[in-house]
Amino acid sequence: MTMLLIENGQVLLPDHEIVAADVLVDQTEGTIAAVNPDPAETEADETLDAEDGLVIPGLVNAHTHAAMTLLRGYADDKPLEAWLQEDVWPVEAELTAEDIAVGTELAAVEMIQSGTTAFADMYFEEPHVAGVVEESGLRALLGHGFVSVGKEEQQAIDDAATSRNFAEQYDGMLDGRIRTAVMPHSLTTVNESLLRESVAGAREAELPVHLHANETEDEVNPIVADHGVRPLTYAEEVGLLADGDFLAHCVHVDDEEVRILADSGAAAIHCPASNMKLASGIAPVQDLLDAGVTVGLGTDGAASNNDLDMFDEMRDAAMVGKLADGDAAAVPADAVVRMATQGSADALGFDAGRIEAGRKADLAVVDLDAAHFTPQHDLVSHLAYAASGSDVRHTVCDGQVLMADGEVLTLDVEDVKARAAEAAAELVARAE
Amino acid sequence: MTMLLIENGQVLLPDHEIVAADVLVDQTEGTIAAVNPDPAETEADETLDAEDGLVIPGLVNAHTHAAMTLLRGYADDKPLEAWLQEDVWPVEAELTAEDIAVGTELAAVEMIQSGTTAFADMYFEEPHVAGVVEESGLRALLGHGFVSVGKEEQQAIDDAATSRNFAEQYDGMLDGRIRTAVMPHSLTTVNESLLRESVAGAREAELPVHLHANETEDEVNPIVADHGVRPLTYAEEVGLLADGDFLAHCVHVDDEEVRILADSGAAAIHCPASNMKLASGIAPVQDLLDAGVTVGLGTDGAASNNDLDMFDEMRDAAMVGKLADGDAAAVPADAVVRMATQGSADALGFDAGRIEAGRKADLAVVDLDAAHFTPQHDLVSHLAYAASGSDVRHTVCDGQVLMADGEVLTLDVEDVKARAAEAAAELVARAE
Repeated sequence: MTMLLIENGQVLLPDHEIVAADVLVDQTEGTIAAVNPDPAETEADETLDAEDGLVIPGLVNAHTHAAMTLLRGYADDKPLEAWLQEDVWPVEAELTAEDIAVGTELAAVEMIQSGTTAFADMYFEEPHVAGVVEESGLRALLGHGFVSVGKEEQQAIDDAATSRNFAEQYDGMLDGRIRTAVMPHSLTTVNESLLRESVAGAREAELPVHLHANETEDEVNPIVADHGVRPLTYAEEVGLLADGDFLAHCVHVDDEEVRILADSGAAAIHCPASNMKLASGIAPVQDLLDAGVTVGLGTDGAASNNDLDMFDEMRDAAMVGKLADGDAAAVPADAVVRMATQGSADALGFDAGRIEAGRKADLAVVDLDAAHFTPQHDLVSHLAYAASGSDVRHTVCDGQVLMADGEVLTLDVEDVKARAAEAAAELVARAE
Repeated sequence: MTMLLIENGQVLLPDHEIVAADVLVDQTEGTIAAVNPDPAETEADETLDAEDGLVIPGLVNAHTHAAMTLLRGYADDKPLEAWLQEDVWPVEAELTAEDIAVGTELAAVEMIQSGTTAFADMYFEEPHVAGVVEESGLRALLGHGFVSVGKEEQQAIDDAATSRNFAEQYDGMLDGRIRTAVMPHSLTTVNESLLRESVAGAREAELPVHLHANETEDEVNPIVADHGVRPLTYAEEVGLLADGDFLAHCVHVDDEEVRILADSGAAAIHCPASNMKLASGIAPVQDLLDAGVTVGLGTDGAASNNDLDMFDEMRDAAMVGKLADGDAAAVPADAVVRMATQGSADALGFDAGRIEAGRKADLAVVDLDAAHFTPQHDLVSHLAYAASGSDVRHTVCDGQVLMADGEVLTLDVEDVKARAAEAAAELVARAE
């Protein structure tokens, strides 16, 4: 049994009380052994200094397409449809498995540097993504995203089979650091029969389902037209919304759909930056929270954000949540910090997001010794409104130190950046 | 004549072309001597390394209350009126001149660290703020904010006189690093006769006027009720909206008011974070730009933001601008970078915000060697969407190096943080 002691810091407890305490980590089990352990009985093999720091649960990015880092800044300021058709899809058509691997490595560097310890990835060539998860030390829920639109029937069926096969094969790998889901892209891009079959397959394999839902009006209206019901009612009809399922966006949900989500146990993943940047609208996050829906937080892909900094995402969620409600009390700091930790972890089914004995040791230490954190009236407010990813000093996942004093230990940052830049340049050259 | 050479970087030119070039600065004059100078004729007394960096105009924070850093995180997630009456005003009533000085020093540290070289401050005890401007090396437009509501008549008249006297006395100080304005707080908090007198006094003294305008519906409705016209028509009636005047917020302006602003030459200062956090609404920024209004960008006070990072502000402006218009093409990256540089500088009447020979040498160097800037498809996009203040390597104002390699040279950062934390704790203790 090897032990890690994170010492001399303050600690954000699950109820958001903040205490001065050490955190003892059982690295063999990958779990938190004790908060505020008896010093006399604490023998640590390794220590991390958290002096002038706040130990927080590692942030959980509950919806992204990690390898889209390669498209960061490639095309901005365009409406969703034009952006997808003119820019994103032509480039994605040229993506190789190697591109996806290096794009995901770049994402992993960025996440580790900014205190994110787990992410949900919906993309392609997921075995290569799993390889990066292994190498980087992050925790992840992975899935192959599939569509039927624009495809031959057999091709679409094969694509769905890839999603299920990957999910069945990889679920629980790396001592549980990898979980999986079956990932139909959305309710409008996968036809009804394939959607029903895929969901049934997921249930049979006891796997959750992750999909985009109600992101834009253009995703709502065709379902109402074709099926006579709103999307989340249709989702229930095809077997979706079981406990464990999680839906990205949920921007255009009406009161009935909020209730459906709350009753179902499925989680909503709020992606405020992407929803603003693509002018999709704003999810009724305060309503979802009030109804008891599990709400997680995600960056979406870097092409519509344009970074993977979950501190930005917390700030965006709080800011735009107030604007959407016309109420400065809506979506407070406390709520967005919960969303990025407990909410996202619960949505993905990871026993993390809370600093308490027995939970997964997924942690980050935020350096509080900064002008923008002075004075320290309220540290939860600072996490939500004043922090950015660059304030993270250490990152720990599954008990392993992924970054210490700003130095990433599991990936060669300079090498990853160089290979990613080269891959992105070649990718764009092929697509243009 | 002493010369500073910023070498080996890329440079953001006024038209947003980006070129690999050195920038030569005449430190004696405080101006840019040349972009891409002939190396044979370049003798520098001092150099700054901009390798792997982007030289940008120093950012200009065109509306803030700098000393409110002392209230950062003190009260969040409350509606504007309750927030002011229950939290902000009781604490502000206890502010001493020393508090304002140290709060402004803290703001200066934060601004220098995040690449801001100039700011507009509306607050109290402005001679003390001017002292911090001198010490820090920043450029500033300063003014004493005054109100008549809740005051005896003579007290209000005296307060307005303080605003004019300060502005007259300090305008042009420090070789022009300080400019001033007369600063009535808003159209609803200063009565009509005092507003008319103050504006007439400003005109007589050839000083601009800075005020809050149309921030919330509660600022619009009383004017319509009392004067029968919208606020910016009323503003014209009392002599406001001359060229050089600048109005913070302009959230609730109708089409006619947009036209009035465009015709007047007065500038609008967009404060998206504050407007979201207080649920005030969103200014029609794309409409203002389309109409030809000079639009600057400001953080507002740190109590409603909660930091002074102008990179956050650019991102917020682009993000929420699209949301407000329902158009992902609205308020693009290019526009928000212009707002934070050229727009804000023009609004404040500083000959800065553009990197070209003869302009004030107010500059920042952004370190591009980061995972979140990889790949580099579009550096203007990165400034708007992926950068944060912590990416700034060097800051130069009026030709003087204020920060080199992340080290602030003009202020003792540790000392400022310690004094600010102590002052904030004592201030809150007095108020509670």
